[in-house]
Amino acid sequence: MDRLTEAERAEHLPQLEGWDLARDGAAIRKVYEFDDFVGAFGFMARVALLAEKADHHPEWSNVYNKVDITLTTHDADGLSMRDVELAQKIDAI
Amino acid sequence: MDRLTEAERAEHLPQLEGWDLARDGAAIRKVYEFDDFVGAFGFMARVALLAEKADHHPEWSNVYNKVDITLTTHDADGLSMRDVELAQKIDAI
Repeated sequence: MDRLTEAERAEHLPQLEGWDLARDGAAIRKVYEFDDFVGAFGFMARVALLAEKADHHPEWSNVYNKVDITLTTHDADGLSMRDVELAQKIDAI
Repeated sequence: MDRLTEAERAEHLPQLEGWDLARDGAAIRKVYEFDDFVGAFGFMARVALLAEKADHHPEWSNVYNKVDITLTTHDADGLSMRDVELAQKIDAI
């Protein structure tokens, strides 16, 4: 999996709503907030199934109603299309 | 929910296997490792159900096959029996 080129970053990253660059541009991050833990973990269960299906897994944490997700592609040592695609799928939940 | 007294800490905390003190003694923490993401998230789903039932929720993160759990009782500004009991239930999984 290739790391995104500058042109690809400029094309795809601005289209991701609410995702911010993290780790000096090597990752993207978004925090989701829900009404309660059931809302947060229900969301995590759906993300987990998407991630396993895509064989691309988030680095994430949860505190009660908040879910903090970071996406990066270790094999690419930065961002790849797998991150963009997983972010889009998560947002589509 | 009352914070554990020194006597209660001395009685209960040493019995928790693999849980270390964190946040200057205000929390306990344990890292679980599984074969893969399915193992890790399957465990998290079981913990989530226990936590919701106990109305006491972990602060936790997951990266692929690892699950890092911190327990503390905000209302007690430290550790309470709810943390001890949830840690025991998690270990019983």
